[in-house]
Amino acid sequence: MKILVINCGSSSLKYQLIDMENEGVLAIGLCERIGINGSKLTHKAEGKGKFELEEEMPNHTVAIKLVMDALVNPEHGVIKDTSEISAVGHRVLHAGTIYSDSIVVNEDVKKVIRDCFDLGPLHNPANLMGIEACEAAMPGTPNVAVFDTAFGMGMPEKASLYAIPMEYYEKYSIRRYGFHGTSHSFVSKEALGFCDLDSNNGKVIVCHLGNGASISASIGGKCVDTSMGLTPLEGLIMGTRSGDIDPAVIQFICNKEGKTVNEVLDILNKKSGILGMSGGVSSDFRDVQKAQAEGNHLADTAINAYIYRVAKYIGAYTAAMNGVDAIVFTAGVGENDKPIRAGICSYLSYLGVEIDAEANSHRGERMIISTPDSKVKVCVIPTNEELAIARETKALV
Amino acid sequence: MKILVINCGSSSLKYQLIDMENEGVLAIGLCERIGINGSKLTHKAEGKGKFELEEEMPNHTVAIKLVMDALVNPEHGVIKDTSEISAVGHRVLHAGTIYSDSIVVNEDVKKVIRDCFDLGPLHNPANLMGIEACEAAMPGTPNVAVFDTAFGMGMPEKASLYAIPMEYYEKYSIRRYGFHGTSHSFVSKEALGFCDLDSNNGKVIVCHLGNGASISASIGGKCVDTSMGLTPLEGLIMGTRSGDIDPAVIQFICNKEGKTVNEVLDILNKKSGILGMSGGVSSDFRDVQKAQAEGNHLADTAINAYIYRVAKYIGAYTAAMNGVDAIVFTAGVGENDKPIRAGICSYLSYLGVEIDAEANSHRGERMIISTPDSKVKVCVIPTNEELAIARETKALV
Repeated sequence: MKILVINCGSSSLKYQLIDMENEGVLAIGLCERIGINGSKLTHKAEGKGKFELEEEMPNHTVAIKLVMDALVNPEHGVIKDTSEISAVGHRVLHAGTIYSDSIVVNEDVKKVIRDCFDLGPLHNPANLMGIEACEAAMPGTPNVAVFDTAFGMGMPEKASLYAIPMEYYEKYSIRRYGFHGTSHSFVSKEALGFCDLDSNNGKVIVCHLGNGASISASIGGKCVDTSMGLTPLEGLIMGTRSGDIDPAVIQFICNKEGKTVNEVLDILNKKSGILGMSGGVSSDFRDVQKAQAEGNHLADTAINAYIYRVAKYIGAYTAAMNGVDAIVFTAGVGENDKPIRAGICSYLSYLGVEIDAEANSHRGERMIISTPDSKVKVCVIPTNEELAIARETKALV
Repeated sequence: MKILVINCGSSSLKYQLIDMENEGVLAIGLCERIGINGSKLTHKAEGKGKFELEEEMPNHTVAIKLVMDALVNPEHGVIKDTSEISAVGHRVLHAGTIYSDSIVVNEDVKKVIRDCFDLGPLHNPANLMGIEACEAAMPGTPNVAVFDTAFGMGMPEKASLYAIPMEYYEKYSIRRYGFHGTSHSFVSKEALGFCDLDSNNGKVIVCHLGNGASISASIGGKCVDTSMGLTPLEGLIMGTRSGDIDPAVIQFICNKEGKTVNEVLDILNKKSGILGMSGGVSSDFRDVQKAQAEGNHLADTAINAYIYRVAKYIGAYTAAMNGVDAIVFTAGVGENDKPIRAGICSYLSYLGVEIDAEANSHRGERMIISTPDSKVKVCVIPTNEELAIARETKALV
């Protein structure tokens, strides 16, 4: 069975064709600048050279057709006919409070995705365009929506509800949803096996540390709490997002600077985090760490604050679960940044966490980085959202 | 030595006259509705009957004069002459980034209090009025400003700085200050002795749970972190304040309801918390617990969320300090609410916390409520901000 995985942004479309017999990637690619001048397809099939195509893509339907062409192309393709694609799995950001699992797309599902445009204004419209483009290009092939919010729907109310007037939950579904759900779900379930934990009761904290960053607590792979909230702004310090702040900071900046709430939120989403805290050095950890090494005080504070915030969340989620069996690092920073992992774990010796410096010196590999005597297993598990989406899709078709 | 302690609100003035020989309260009282029709003084001296006086108080200077009259009144007073008052200690909310300790008031100090009106718009103007009223009523008697933000100034930058563009810290001093500082400072220092901890290295978490609520971590009585931020809105769920939320919730409500950011912040400060979450039952815990007992689902969720938030902060602060020696409950709810204390501690058995149910059944008493085997000492220490202010004042004059 071959499954195509699609992740649509407003002007981009990422894809992978996965052979579910061995979970191997047959082809991977990206359409950029859809609906903008200078659209481009980059395609790489297993065992073949990279293929690039510059051709106008006025919309996602045209983009999908070019992807199909590339996949069946005798030279750089991997299948003879699109009928070999058994199903398409779509990353969809937001299902509001409606779906807590992946689902085969029908008109009702599309309506829910549309009804959640408000909750996911940047992503849901693009996700729906991707689904409709696949329906047009491959009539009869099932599409599956894999929601980034599904994992968080398992949270109890004490974790998901904000302490605001309940009418806002009832009228607008304002609550904690959590994002990176597909990654948290995948990594937490992989951790249960990899760390040899009880599949129903294993307590796992997953630190998804990329340019966006979030953390989750789960028991037996079921979400207990997660740091992103109504939007991806809440929680950890990120590349450009502030994470947690006193909500009154927004009012203070609005009033002092004569800015609108939308302008201030834009600053909190795009000019804050490591970028803002370092005084504008960069949103990329490597740049900020370089500046830190060169003695830049703000860069040093930003990195220390980043590490501190993650450590505090690990502490908080350990309390939320009354204990923790495994702490897992994933995504770009989590998989590759040894000093960040070591820095976070340096706060946790009270839990009996002991890091093996040699093991922690590896990058991007699935491995246990705690010592055999460590009371909590600490490991790196590279995330694989595409494979997670493909598995969910396979399970439903 | 007798010290008068003053806590001025915009239309109120609370006072205590304390004999520092034995730290006993000689008199306690309150002026209400200052500057509003129907002003009233309520005064109670040790060993004497309650004295009430309804007399117009157009400003704090008049109020202070009536307080002086009551204190020296032969019938319900406790001193012969105001010259017996060695100094006046004032609770002052905000010193911005300028003072991290109490200080004897002079013109420079008054300027700082005035410069911080923006940061403490409800309190600092009233606090300054109280100081100036005492200067007028008791020329030559020293006034000491005890700042509610002083304790939090000890925090390291990784805890105090928000991950927002640094220019906002530089231009407007936007950072975490923390409030209830006098209480946290007093209770954390008392805990070191009461729990027999190392006075320099003892790790203490103080849960100040009143109608406002905050939590602090301190090592050897020095603040490491605290939950209130730029304003008292951040952190725990409170009677009417939301505590932590996704900052984007403000934008969402502004845009959905056509409200200004000031209007939404007003909702987050005055109509949220336990009151909002319980669907409007009450901001008072006892009412919400009664509704919970009667099967009100929202009341139950509000109480559970409140407990859960405190437990998560205790977990986070334990990570912040890489361990904890004592957890202390104080203020109205913390001193008196047995099920809330038990509920919070039920999350903490992973730390070796064990509560003694009999000890925890006491209310409002200084006592250890954990078992002798508990790896972390848990106790109740009633807060006494007035005594803390009097001690600070005595130390400076």
